Amino acid sequence: MAELVGNCLIGQSGGPSVVNNASVAGVVSEALNHGCVEEVYGALNGVAGILQEDLVDLAAESQQAIRGLRHTPGAALGSCRTKLKKPQDFERALEVFKAHNIRYYFHIGDGDAQENAAKISELAKAQNYELRVIGIPKTIDNDLPATDHCPGYGSAVKYIATTVKELAVDAEATGTHDLVTIVEVMGRNTGWLAAGASLAKRRDHPADAPHLVYVPEVAFVSDKFAEDVRRILKKEKHCVVVAGEGLVDKDGNYVAVETSDAAGAAQFGGVGEFLKEIVETQVGAKARVARLGVAQRSAAHLASKTDADEAFLAGQAAVKAAVNGESDKMVTLVRGDGDHYVCETGLTSLAELAGNLKKLPREWINEDGVSLNFQFYRYATPLIQGEVAVPFDNGLPSFVRLAKDPVDKTLPGYEA
Amino acid sequence: MAELVGNCLIGQSGGPSVVNNASVAGVVSEALNHGCVEEVYGALNGVAGILQEDLVDLAAESQQAIRGLRHTPGAALGSCRTKLKKPQDFERALEVFKAHNIRYYFHIGDGDAQENAAKISELAKAQNYELRVIGIPKTIDNDLPATDHCPGYGSAVKYIATTVKELAVDAEATGTHDLVTIVEVMGRNTGWLAAGASLAKRRDHPADAPHLVYVPEVAFVSDKFAEDVRRILKKEKHCVVVAGEGLVDKDGNYVAVETSDAAGAAQFGGVGEFLKEIVETQVGAKARVARLGVAQRSAAHLASKTDADEAFLAGQAAVKAAVNGESDKMVTLVRGDGDHYVCETGLTSLAELAGNLKKLPREWINEDGVSLNFQFYRYATPLIQGEVAVPFDNGLPSFVRLAKDPVDKTLPGYEA
Repeated sequence: MAELVGNCLIGQSGGPSVVNNASVAGVVSEALNHGCVEEVYGALNGVAGILQEDLVDLAAESQQAIRGLRHTPGAALGSCRTKLKKPQDFERALEVFKAHNIRYYFHIGDGDAQENAAKISELAKAQNYELRVIGIPKTIDNDLPATDHCPGYGSAVKYIATTVKELAVDAEATGTHDLVTIVEVMGRNTGWLAAGASLAKRRDHPADAPHLVYVPEVAFVSDKFAEDVRRILKKEKHCVVVAGEGLVDKDGNYVAVETSDAAGAAQFGGVGEFLKEIVETQVGAKARVARLGVAQRSAAHLASKTDADEAFLAGQAAVKAAVNGESDKMVTLVRGDGDHYVCETGLTSLAELAGNLKKLPREWINEDGVSLNFQFYRYATPLIQGEVAVPFDNGLPSFVRLAKDPVDKTLPGYEA
Repeated sequence: MAELVGNCLIGQSGGPSVVNNASVAGVVSEALNHGCVEEVYGALNGVAGILQEDLVDLAAESQQAIRGLRHTPGAALGSCRTKLKKPQDFERALEVFKAHNIRYYFHIGDGDAQENAAKISELAKAQNYELRVIGIPKTIDNDLPATDHCPGYGSAVKYIATTVKELAVDAEATGTHDLVTIVEVMGRNTGWLAAGASLAKRRDHPADAPHLVYVPEVAFVSDKFAEDVRRILKKEKHCVVVAGEGLVDKDGNYVAVETSDAAGAAQFGGVGEFLKEIVETQVGAKARVARLGVAQRSAAHLASKTDADEAFLAGQAAVKAAVNGESDKMVTLVRGDGDHYVCETGLTSLAELAGNLKKLPREWINEDGVSLNFQFYRYATPLIQGEVAVPFDNGLPSFVRLAKDPVDKTLPGYEA
């Protein structure tokens, strides 16, 4: 295989995560190891920046800054939720690639990002422009297929489980009997995050929080919920409930969709208040709601070292694969078979990802529908191990900002 | 002064904090240094436990457990919100003290706890029972008078400012313009916690979050709020708002009281949603709300070392004062005059505390009413310095539970 010489481009998209930037660091540091990669560019706000030719020179960033990305939340290059649709958008993207001799394109993101990339790649092939496209997974929701787990998930779970543990200690301390603490977590379609909260509970310690975990994979029934809460309150002096925002009833309808946004997409949130109402009216107990919200994907001060290291590794693996001639693939995380957790990277075809969601396996949920069994513990426990040594400055965690040295534009403007 | 020989008792009350237990550790470890203190007991759930004669032997706890209290949130002995009212309750409390030869009573708590203690002490004097009573301050609200600041405040501010910083990084990353992030923090009557969020903002960096801080000390005006948000959105691509739950209008009425509880007390919360409504209808921008809730007082994984050390010091100081013959006092934290922050302890009369709230000084708030000046920064910055080395076990912070070896009851039961 002939060596492909040219420049590389990195883009970020979708909801940020705590380790999204660690993958950028992985790509940049690995790219600089390969002579065939000449320039290392970043696209501002993902494909939105590609269309506008808003590129920055990542090789010009200080080494400190790139290292600092390993503990900086958000998306240092800016993210976007743009899904390219018009044929001229793909034409334009490829035109920008050609103008800057982009031969390697790495995009960090979930489903939409992978689809955009696959189509740009297809167009490049049609025009005989040699381009290698490798995706890097990222979603705290952990719902991408083909990969054992997604970078971002472990840190989100570490934050959620820690917070549940701390809220439970607080609830125990208050001396108020029959207090129900409801923790609402993200997860539109899958229960991975809600299930992760159960790591706060030692197995076979029924008194530990969380006492009840509700996931979208199990149809929600109000009467059963009220009965579950009553049962726990009878045994323990308080009850901690964790619920995913996307709970559905037996007909598959969301039990609590707050509003629709301008585009008609469901805006989640409200499950906590919905459950509180049931506790107060049907159970007659006092309830308080914690809605963890965006902190779940941004609490970098509590990132999982395993997760951050794997996100970095995934970035490195993307570059290695592309340099070795791979394209139209997404990096996957592959778990070893042994008892001792090891994680390597693999590759999967971008084409296989489209439209597939990985649900929490029903057989990992106990028959009671509100707790997880040893299979989930075995799966998730390794993912939250280790703490990232976030530097503190004047009492607060210190994050980096990239200098974002702009790459000169060579094309006329574009109206997206 | 004759040495007073007898047992000591510790109780906790009010809303837990991250460093409440550090004060217990300070009392226990100091008490064991003094021969005149024979037994070291804890009251379960504060005065509620005293009335029921529910005492535990703290000297029997392992040294590990007592050391672990320095990083364990909540209230290890259990807290309560009981305010003693009936004369027979005070009689009973003193009867329990006599039955167990309690000569030293240390209570960690806010206003009500200090009042209960003052009245027990008064009754002891009337009955010629020698008893030394010393209070230890604790409230994340930071609104106790006479002390420079309260144990619990620094850690709460460290958590709030960190979270604001992380949420802001996330908001910047999303690439969504005109996004308003509203962070609702505790603080029923004072703006100390909301003001603390501003430590996330470097002074003279208007682009840093939080961009707008609303405190109960400044009357809230909807139109001005909408105008403030518009002004920030025009300059920055997003806007982070921090608001105290107890915001009031110019007539002193709460702008957003959710419900009243059974006792008719206002249940706070809802300011975030209230502001979101204004942003959406009057400004026409997208808003999202983070309501930090109880995590503010329980996020031990992010405790301020300065705060935890001072809470421990306050516990030690209480014992030293009592052994030296002091009574009817509360320990205070006293800041040195120099440029370099130092903190010592002092004492104030319990009688002076009743009913007084320390508000955020108006002269520490800029004229715009939505930002804090150098005086606040100088005050608050030292309080969040340093990180407590919380041990992690299997990926999550590890907290201690006391063994709570019960002290034999010697009195008949009591109907409170």
